[in-house]
Amino acid sequence: MIKAGIVGGTGYTGVELLRILAGHPAVKLTAITSRSDVGQKVSDMFPSLRRQVDLQFITPEDGALEQCDVVFFATPNGVAMQHAAALLAAGVKVIDLAADFRIADVAEWEKWYGMRHAAPELVAEAVYGLPEINREDIRQARVIANPGCYPTAVQLGFLPLVEAGVIALDHLVADAKSGVSGAGRKAALANLYSEVTDSFKAYGVGGHRHLPEIRQGLSRMAGGGDVGLTFVPHLAPMVRGIHATLYARLTRELNEAELQAIFGSRFAGETFVDVLPPGSHPETRSVRASNMCRIAVHRPQGGDTVVVLSVIDNLVKGAAGQAVQNMNILFGEEESLGLASLLPVSP
Amino acid sequence: MIKAGIVGGTGYTGVELLRILAGHPAVKLTAITSRSDVGQKVSDMFPSLRRQVDLQFITPEDGALEQCDVVFFATPNGVAMQHAAALLAAGVKVIDLAADFRIADVAEWEKWYGMRHAAPELVAEAVYGLPEINREDIRQARVIANPGCYPTAVQLGFLPLVEAGVIALDHLVADAKSGVSGAGRKAALANLYSEVTDSFKAYGVGGHRHLPEIRQGLSRMAGGGDVGLTFVPHLAPMVRGIHATLYARLTRELNEAELQAIFGSRFAGETFVDVLPPGSHPETRSVRASNMCRIAVHRPQGGDTVVVLSVIDNLVKGAAGQAVQNMNILFGEEESLGLASLLPVSP
Amino acid sequence: MIKAGIVGGTGYTGVELLRILAGHPAVKLTAITSRSDVGQKVSDMFPSLRRQVDLQFITPEDGALEQCDVVFFATPNGVAMQHAAALLAAGVKVIDLAADFRIADVAEWEKWYGMRHAAPELVAEAVYGLPEINREDIRQARVIANPGCYPTAVQLGFLPLVEAGVIALDHLVADAKSGVSGAGRKAALANLYSEVTDSFKAYGVGGHRHLPEIRQGLSRMAGGGDVGLTFVPHLAPMVRGIHATLYARLTRELNEAELQAIFGSRFAGETFVDVLPPGSHPETRSVRASNMCRIAVHRPQGGDTVVVLSVIDNLVKGAAGQAVQNMNILFGEEESLGLASLLPVSP
Amino acid sequence: MIKAGIVGGTGYTGVELLRILAGHPAVKLTAITSRSDVGQKVSDMFPSLRRQVDLQFITPEDGALEQCDVVFFATPNGVAMQHAAALLAAGVKVIDLAADFRIADVAEWEKWYGMRHAAPELVAEAVYGLPEINREDIRQARVIANPGCYPTAVQLGFLPLVEAGVIALDHLVADAKSGVSGAGRKAALANLYSEVTDSFKAYGVGGHRHLPEIRQGLSRMAGGGDVGLTFVPHLAPMVRGIHATLYARLTRELNEAELQAIFGSRFAGETFVDVLPPGSHPETRSVRASNMCRIAVHRPQGGDTVVVLSVIDNLVKGAAGQAVQNMNILFGEEESLGLASLLPVSP
Repeated sequence: MIKAGIVGGTGYTGVELLRILAGHPAVKLTAITSRSDVGQKVSDMFPSLRRQVDLQFITPEDGALEQCDVVFFATPNGVAMQHAAALLAAGVKVIDLAADFRIADVAEWEKWYGMRHAAPELVAEAVYGLPEINREDIRQARVIANPGCYPTAVQLGFLPLVEAGVIALDHLVADAKSGVSGAGRKAALANLYSEVTDSFKAYGVGGHRHLPEIRQGLSRMAGGGDVGLTFVPHLAPMVRGIHATLYARLTRELNEAELQAIFGSRFAGETFVDVLPPGSHPETRSVRASNMCRIAVHRPQGGDTVVVLSVIDNLVKGAAGQAVQNMNILFGEEESLGLASLLPVSP
Repeated sequence: MIKAGIVGGTGYTGVELLRILAGHPAVKLTAITSRSDVGQKVSDMFPSLRRQVDLQFITPEDGALEQCDVVFFATPNGVAMQHAAALLAAGVKVIDLAADFRIADVAEWEKWYGMRHAAPELVAEAVYGLPEINREDIRQARVIANPGCYPTAVQLGFLPLVEAGVIALDHLVADAKSGVSGAGRKAALANLYSEVTDSFKAYGVGGHRHLPEIRQGLSRMAGGGDVGLTFVPHLAPMVRGIHATLYARLTRELNEAELQAIFGSRFAGETFVDVLPPGSHPETRSVRASNMCRIAVHRPQGGDTVVVLSVIDNLVKGAAGQAVQNMNILFGEEESLGLASLLPVSP
Repeated sequence: MIKAGIVGGTGYTGVELLRILAGHPAVKLTAITSRSDVGQKVSDMFPSLRRQVDLQFITPEDGALEQCDVVFFATPNGVAMQHAAALLAAGVKVIDLAADFRIADVAEWEKWYGMRHAAPELVAEAVYGLPEINREDIRQARVIANPGCYPTAVQLGFLPLVEAGVIALDHLVADAKSGVSGAGRKAALANLYSEVTDSFKAYGVGGHRHLPEIRQGLSRMAGGGDVGLTFVPHLAPMVRGIHATLYARLTRELNEAELQAIFGSRFAGETFVDVLPPGSHPETRSVRASNMCRIAVHRPQGGDTVVVLSVIDNLVKGAAGQAVQNMNILFGEEESLGLASLLPVSP
Repeated sequence: MIKAGIVGGTGYTGVELLRILAGHPAVKLTAITSRSDVGQKVSDMFPSLRRQVDLQFITPEDGALEQCDVVFFATPNGVAMQHAAALLAAGVKVIDLAADFRIADVAEWEKWYGMRHAAPELVAEAVYGLPEINREDIRQARVIANPGCYPTAVQLGFLPLVEAGVIALDHLVADAKSGVSGAGRKAALANLYSEVTDSFKAYGVGGHRHLPEIRQGLSRMAGGGDVGLTFVPHLAPMVRGIHATLYARLTRELNEAELQAIFGSRFAGETFVDVLPPGSHPETRSVRASNMCRIAVHRPQGGDTVVVLSVIDNLVKGAAGQAVQNMNILFGEEESLGLASLLPVSP
């Protein structure tokens, strides 16, 4: 059994980790920390976990984390970088669900995240945990930078086109919509029910932290070089789900069948990427509570603009599920273990 | 492996059965019928089931149902009673998620359901499938009348009090609130998103079909005799979930600890009934997508009125999950097999 | 023109007051205070009010409130009682949308609200602002205690039955459901979108502050004496709306037509109480954003339990709209001025 | 008083017309037709209109429409074109909220709408009712083609940039999100609450009927010539609201202040277009139930892609409100009469 610990288990990604790990056949949940809730039973805070999780919150200093095989950081940005080195020294693998190790260019990271990086050497070592791209490197890693939710949906959607070299990279558009759980479980006026429901808005149009992460990913897919991307995130009145609508200009004449084939062959064999038949419009609920990404590709009106629709559950494939997928790879388990059984809940 | 068939797999309880049975380790989904969708792949209609369910809809006349060990009817009222006898004759067990076999008094059933009963002899034979009450009878049954959603939440909430004989039975009140999925997956103006969202209403105050079913259940618990019940169902703007708020007058002086003990001991050992600590207010989301019922008992202001709060997911413990629980009992499997792994999805 | 000021204009009842008063033909919005937002334009905080409200937030000490004809307190409990006397001395009428002046028994108030009352003498003077009961007293008042949202819906629903003396007063049940805006516009975890949506729960079963207010109202209607009431509030996943489902036992044989007549004649001539035809089930959306209360009365199954359904918009008839209705009466305007034009927004 | 009739008053745009016209000081609601509901009181179907609308549904053949000054068609596509000529002959002005007269190229219309046009000569005569562009022509018109909801939001958003000639017209992207009421009030499985809520999807990516309408509008703004547009509509889980996110490439170096000025000066004096300050992100709820369009313009990361955010209420500025705005112009009333008083309802 893999002994797993969670730092910061009181946010939505933390609870989702608990839900997934509690049912994972190869995992023993060993420790969960929350400085502000020490001594409280996890299931008192989250009644949905009654009879499933029998832990109490402890402090990170308790020593229990060092006894784990793997520790997940479901913390705000800037926490994992403070603690990762000590855990690694104790032989513990680290999977950070926040952004600390996602951006290779430390200066760029510091600009977007507004703080000094505490462990630049680990940034260099860390592996970006998008299994559909980095599976082999993940297998060998000690530190995994678990991708952001938007970056997961956007990168998987663009991936086949960029690798195939069939789109112009200078003016990509990613118009992405997220459920409210992406904003985290914190008491903020903007996330109140009465502020969010029955409304829709864009945010961060001037610049969102996931922009450099996506740009870095697209650039790597393209073999380096700059990528021009306009990324506009939106808040949709729903809890879970990301819908990325991607626009790119074809640089080659390709009919819809050829486009479809590019996607089909790129993701053949992937358990958690499902390429839909031509003409499909994936709904976010078709992946709700599951680790699946569903993708459809269109070429509207026979023009030279290709449109990709990519949906995930931001808390699962966009966070906790992908983290567990990475853990499975790290520990040599079946990649889908404890994840394939999470069937989408729709309705 | 239990070979399972589903008649009428295109409604919400049908899809939920598919979700549960697809992941059930002792079940092989063998046949699913839908007269209007013959030949269509199930996963084309429900993309959430892609890669999970590889069946096509067939007609009931196809012969495949007779090869099953058990057939679930997820059909409108009045269907199962037409087909059950033939299946039983072929040695197939029948679990009806509709109301055909729920009311022992056939005349009463005919009054409320507005049709002639086609198999009164099976009504007499059928076992009412509320495992927390009828577990032993279910084990021996050939035909299970799976309880309605409201009746499940209301009966489990009143059960300890009625059995303990501590409340007056002449003026019970059950004020129940249901998510919209309870109305089924049919194109009806009243269930449109724009008609239902951000609104709340009662319905069927004059008389709802679940009233005689609940009354019958309460009367049986009480050892026979009339029970006076006012039952008011409401439609809440959510998909899943029933919240029953129950009011009864105590006939004996009992403090909250004694009330709590009555509930705790009645449901001790029940996998799917969770009695919450004193002072709790269960939320429907704490059971969403799971087979759990959570119950809290209150005695407000020290008065003689006891208030019970009982929540279930109407599609799971209120329908498909309870049906699978019944199937497990019928076939000698662990009662929670394939159900315990359905952790609540909250948020 | 009535010069109106608002203390605490940043909560939901404050914004709703702004929406209503901005369109009121006899009102000039003169001052609005919010200590934490001094200098900010109201329309910067609430873009929906751009081009409608041209005020900036000021401090209460600014002196502008004393220049008003009426000041509305849309503040937390305990604020109006600190400032009312000074305003009254300056000749300003006071309408408190919080609870400071609602409970005549000051000791009872202090018990439920957990603070010492700062102006008990004004409690004695204040008029409870439910126009359908107290219209004449309101006309003469200097201080209005604007009723709570639940108390408005519940009292209007019980009123005809209590006044007619046809129900037993010892075991009334009020099962009430509220939208989330009733919890106010404050950053609290429990009111986050992801905590509230697609879920339903009761709260405060042990005792809610609106209980003594409702009890006092029912007792007055009954001509004094104790009233036994079980009041259970619930949170429904919607923004606006209260649905009160009321249960009482008839002490006299009355058929549905007679019950209907009791309601019809009691509310004949009321602009803002609409008694629906027999058999109706009012939806909260039928009153959304309007000052209307709609009521239906049922006698299920011909039994001796009468069920009343009463719906309001908690922010309008349950708060800001009723406050304006009171203001109209206070200043001798048409009672429906600026309110009748607020047609319900449904869908 | 303007005598107004409505054909097809049972859909969402019809009800919204009723809400607006019932409160319009210069309008007398004279007739409303619905073939399937003849004799029913409007307020029985829509309780929110009780005490506001005292009409019964009649047949179109009743003769009452010919007595009106103006008739609104809130009907499916293909109805107005059958009846407009007769009404015009009787001296009645016609405002069609459907698409019959929107596309000047009749062959193009017939291709997209899949039927033969019954009145091509009226297409030539009809004026496209977007007041911010066509105010003068509307004044003289007999037949108004009221714009579609998406076309209103998208055209107003692109208008200043196209007229100023500062963007490339060959690869425009309009990523638009709509509430569910846009799908109309008809019993369709896809629009059920349980199908739509907590989910998000694109639809019609291959081609949506609003595409040719938008293209025609953009082309006219540009002074003719082809415009390359990719238009992707999405369904958001909310009732009202359209959020259009528009992407274009600048052909000239313009900083954000210059962009802002282009929008500010183009819409100066417009009552129903509100250009937000730089850096704004309009929410659909800020225009809910009002006739306002709010627009923000961004130039992310200083690149050459301009992003415009444009929000409307699809039932008001996107349908019924704009129709009344057109009526006001047609009849020489103040353009905002009966509309300016519809303050946004937010929350």
